[in-house]
Amino acid sequence: MAKNVTARGSKRRPGVPIELVPVTGLPEICEGNDLARLIVEAARNARIAFHNGDILVIAQKVVSKAEGRLVRLSAIEPSPPASQIAAKGRRDPRLVEIILRESRRIVREHPVLIVETHHGFVCANAGVDHSNVPGEDVVTLLPCDPDGSARRLAAGIRKLTKKRVAVIISDTFGRPWRLGLTNVAIGAVGVPVLQDLRGTPDRHSKLLQATILAVADELAAAAGLVMGKTEGIPVVVIRGYRYHPTDERATNIIRPADEDLFR
Amino acid sequence: MAKNVTARGSKRRPGVPIELVPVTGLPEICEGNDLARLIVEAARNARIAFHNGDILVIAQKVVSKAEGRLVRLSAIEPSPPASQIAAKGRRDPRLVEIILRESRRIVREHPVLIVETHHGFVCANAGVDHSNVPGEDVVTLLPCDPDGSARRLAAGIRKLTKKRVAVIISDTFGRPWRLGLTNVAIGAVGVPVLQDLRGTPDRHSKLLQATILAVADELAAAAGLVMGKTEGIPVVVIRGYRYHPTDERATNIIRPADEDLFR
Repeated sequence: MAKNVTARGSKRRPGVPIELVPVTGLPEICEGNDLARLIVEAARNARIAFHNGDILVIAQKVVSKAEGRLVRLSAIEPSPPASQIAAKGRRDPRLVEIILRESRRIVREHPVLIVETHHGFVCANAGVDHSNVPGEDVVTLLPCDPDGSARRLAAGIRKLTKKRVAVIISDTFGRPWRLGLTNVAIGAVGVPVLQDLRGTPDRHSKLLQATILAVADELAAAAGLVMGKTEGIPVVVIRGYRYHPTDERATNIIRPADEDLFR
Repeated sequence: MAKNVTARGSKRRPGVPIELVPVTGLPEICEGNDLARLIVEAARNARIAFHNGDILVIAQKVVSKAEGRLVRLSAIEPSPPASQIAAKGRRDPRLVEIILRESRRIVREHPVLIVETHHGFVCANAGVDHSNVPGEDVVTLLPCDPDGSARRLAAGIRKLTKKRVAVIISDTFGRPWRLGLTNVAIGAVGVPVLQDLRGTPDRHSKLLQATILAVADELAAAAGLVMGKTEGIPVVVIRGYRYHPTDERATNIIRPADEDLFR
């Protein structure tokens, strides 16, 4: 596990609040839009000035739209395997076909189609989604390389503002043992992803034994409180969280196959 | 699933930041301490005045200590099953004995001992933990009834401050497909636990289909950013998150047996 983890990636000064600031007023995003520029403009209009060290959590949906990761269902010819799976679950075979194309393994077919995506994420429907997309016929796919998307967006924002911000690309995933979705990190740059506290002393000077915190997922979840699902707030600034910048990729958070509890 | 879910449990006013405020200066908590009073006093010393609607996220560890949910390993006689499991994993048989007593089912023995607790939570070691406890020989157990603990703490704080706050009791749990721990809700009062958005319109007036947000877990995760693990900040105030108070219990978030993806 050690290879995936940055030791003591972050440290907070106690007593200082963390703020979760919504970036409102972003327009509907279309393929080819310069998302970094639109975010900077929306922030300016909302009187939010970016600071070095700010963490921007950006919903996958707007990243996918800007990158043209949209598919029209009517353009899809379902394969026989997709049609079979669709028939068993009363699903749209074209949607299942898209999900299979985005996947390298089916984890489970019922009650929801859970797959491992080409990135390695285990999630429902490979992240293929109908919601917050204009038109009944169009679905969004996850970005091809969400860590790369995060890097490009951070670089674009830096060019426009001269500020060094960290970026997390987030999506809402379900969990096997707990109901409901939580916002998690699928792409990241600049921010600790996993914070390894093993070997650091606790309050009583005992060394912590099994504590690796999924910091990027907690940052994404915090932003999820601000984003909601229906309110059109796809960008949240997290301010006041102290950390050491890292080069970790969000894909580091994927549990390696040999440690997967259910493979 | 519907029985577990409060429809549209919360609603945020867009554009307003959420603040995560650490309550510093809490003393080491001992069995029998009036935790509500100690939290109110620490907040006063830190110049934090509670407001109606504030959400207090309280780490399980201090609740367990106040409730006397501590066990001395040297007082434990391991049973034969505990000794067998311990021998296979090179674990302390007394610790395994305590974990088994806190569990109603073993989900997995390797690489970590994952169980279903008597509450129904699926987690490593039944939440039994060495860290941030004085003495090498003592471990903490989860509260017997974390929802009840949350209710009592909210009532105690209301009596002392005349303010109606929501309370979440949190602990850090692992996940099968993703590395690292995140802070989750194991007890709650007053706050939405699952927010059901199914049937509400998205930005494009399409009805959301499969969106139930695990709000209490996202609130706990946000607080986890402030708590850290080594810094002695077991209480965080979340301010600015708008919601309708509910009677939901955090145990509602446990996936029912017939929907569990791996039972």
